[in-house]
Amino acid sequence: MSRIAIDVMGGDHAPDEIVKGCVLAAEKLESTLVLVGKEDVIKEKLAAYTYDASKIEIVHADEVIEMGDSPVAAIRQKKNSSMVVGLKLVKEKQVDGFVSAGSTGALLTGATLIVGRIKGVERPAMAPFIPTETGCALLIDCGANVDAKPTYLNQFARMGTVYMEQCMQIKSPKVGLVNIGTEEEKGNQLTKEAYKLLDADASINFCGNVEARDIPLGKVDILVCDGFTGNIILKFMEGFGKWILGMLKVQFLKSLKTKLAAVLMKKGIGEIKEKFNYATKGGAPFLGVNGLIVKTHGSSKSQEILSTLIQTEGFIKDGLVDKIKDKFEENVN
Amino acid sequence: MSRIAIDVMGGDHAPDEIVKGCVLAAEKLESTLVLVGKEDVIKEKLAAYTYDASKIEIVHADEVIEMGDSPVAAIRQKKNSSMVVGLKLVKEKQVDGFVSAGSTGALLTGATLIVGRIKGVERPAMAPFIPTETGCALLIDCGANVDAKPTYLNQFARMGTVYMEQCMQIKSPKVGLVNIGTEEEKGNQLTKEAYKLLDADASINFCGNVEARDIPLGKVDILVCDGFTGNIILKFMEGFGKWILGMLKVQFLKSLKTKLAAVLMKKGIGEIKEKFNYATKGGAPFLGVNGLIVKTHGSSKSQEILSTLIQTEGFIKDGLVDKIKDKFEENVN
Repeated sequence: MSRIAIDVMGGDHAPDEIVKGCVLAAEKLESTLVLVGKEDVIKEKLAAYTYDASKIEIVHADEVIEMGDSPVAAIRQKKNSSMVVGLKLVKEKQVDGFVSAGSTGALLTGATLIVGRIKGVERPAMAPFIPTETGCALLIDCGANVDAKPTYLNQFARMGTVYMEQCMQIKSPKVGLVNIGTEEEKGNQLTKEAYKLLDADASINFCGNVEARDIPLGKVDILVCDGFTGNIILKFMEGFGKWILGMLKVQFLKSLKTKLAAVLMKKGIGEIKEKFNYATKGGAPFLGVNGLIVKTHGSSKSQEILSTLIQTEGFIKDGLVDKIKDKFEENVN
Repeated sequence: MSRIAIDVMGGDHAPDEIVKGCVLAAEKLESTLVLVGKEDVIKEKLAAYTYDASKIEIVHADEVIEMGDSPVAAIRQKKNSSMVVGLKLVKEKQVDGFVSAGSTGALLTGATLIVGRIKGVERPAMAPFIPTETGCALLIDCGANVDAKPTYLNQFARMGTVYMEQCMQIKSPKVGLVNIGTEEEKGNQLTKEAYKLLDADASINFCGNVEARDIPLGKVDILVCDGFTGNIILKFMEGFGKWILGMLKVQFLKSLKTKLAAVLMKKGIGEIKEKFNYATKGGAPFLGVNGLIVKTHGSSKSQEILSTLIQTEGFIKDGLVDKIKDKFEENVN
């Protein structure tokens, strides 16, 4: 039976929503949940619920890494924080995975410093899904490596391929390189060099450059880019989507006529909004770390914590980390 | 009286829509329009319209730079192309500005090689407007410099400031640096260094980093970034906006009820669409070139050509190029 640790103190709605999400997950998952954080706080929050006590454990950690903390300093100095303690549980193989809604920078730093990289992996990457016309696409990297080298991008493509094959059952997933033109010679120094590496790599199904305007079309399964570009895309999508839906709301509220239209379109608008919820459903694993670390949205409430925990149990069952290890060991040998 | 040259052979709808746009502009503008391209073709197209012949001239150029042509090779080899001939008219001061809907890469290369940079400007930049909640923001650079240095970004901010002050009548326009976090220390090597330069530059109103999710809020007038990032934002916005509006259309067409809603919301949806048309209204000047070169959307039809020509006449009246020269000469001395 697998064990999943959760950072109870990380995220905008911690600890309340995190604890609530864990209680929901205890009903649905086979795994034991290890709640990491201030023991008295966790006990007090848990007391409000009825749950199977054999499925929930508490590991005490009395410090909290705040969003404003410098990632490296926080990981080095707050040894007793819920995040550091959770990462150590992964390192010591006391749990099979760790989920946090806390600071992305600190979690990534901690994942690298405490849990470490898989042998052969130059840099771990953060890989969330973004919604597209055909479903969703893996966007790798989204902020772990803001200054990337061409070889990193090649490795991102390999790790993403393992992920999509093992966990999403997509055979030979299509890889696209996010770029400013479709032709091979387009791009900046990074993408021009990365194109050559990706094109020469027989272990992935490279389909060429993908222009930003074509990202929503969903023609590839994996979008490879440096962490700066990925972060810009992810966050711009979030802000831009919100803006358009906001403008729509204003128009729907303008008059009695448009309010009637809003009633008639309620289901349709709901379907569009649901499409964008995809991004916050579940979290983003740090691929390339020698242990399973999953970052979930900072604004996660109980339902998103539940989704991320379901997804994390899936990653454990699919053996995601070991499959990436196998792939990179093959290449190392 | 000013004179504006137009590349009749460039763009998806050339020459028909370009000629039509010029005829429309001849009625509205004070400037004389110099149509550059195959003389027989232009004459044939013009024959379909009634127009003030004193406002339209033709300069023959029998080659055409195609979208697939390598920019540098095209500019060097196709000396008799409409684009090269138009750029030479600017260089020789026979016209006060040149508008093209042709290849961006070729136009930029030609602008730099033929017309040249303003003294003191390291790299020209392409600066279109993007729509925001508060109106619009200048996004500089959008593709001219895919590998940028921190000093370029500082110069983009200065040139953008001159543009917004002179042509948009915005006093002390707010400058934001597109980045992956709001804090000063966030970003990649480029943005971290650029932040310091921007922050130390007393000649601009620097307001710090702008995260991609906040771009649509329109809190700044000028968004500074490298050309790769700007191009990603510009094109992603285009593709993503189209996708959302497409999903909305599908929902509106689903049933009799939703079709009724579509009728009730026609005006409101029209207003939202109009907001996004902003991007294609008018073109983007290449700031930093020692002459006025304006790129308009490749898919421009006559109305957009007209808008771009109106905008170009405005740039000439506002003395945009000279004002940028003044700013950089101040700094050179």
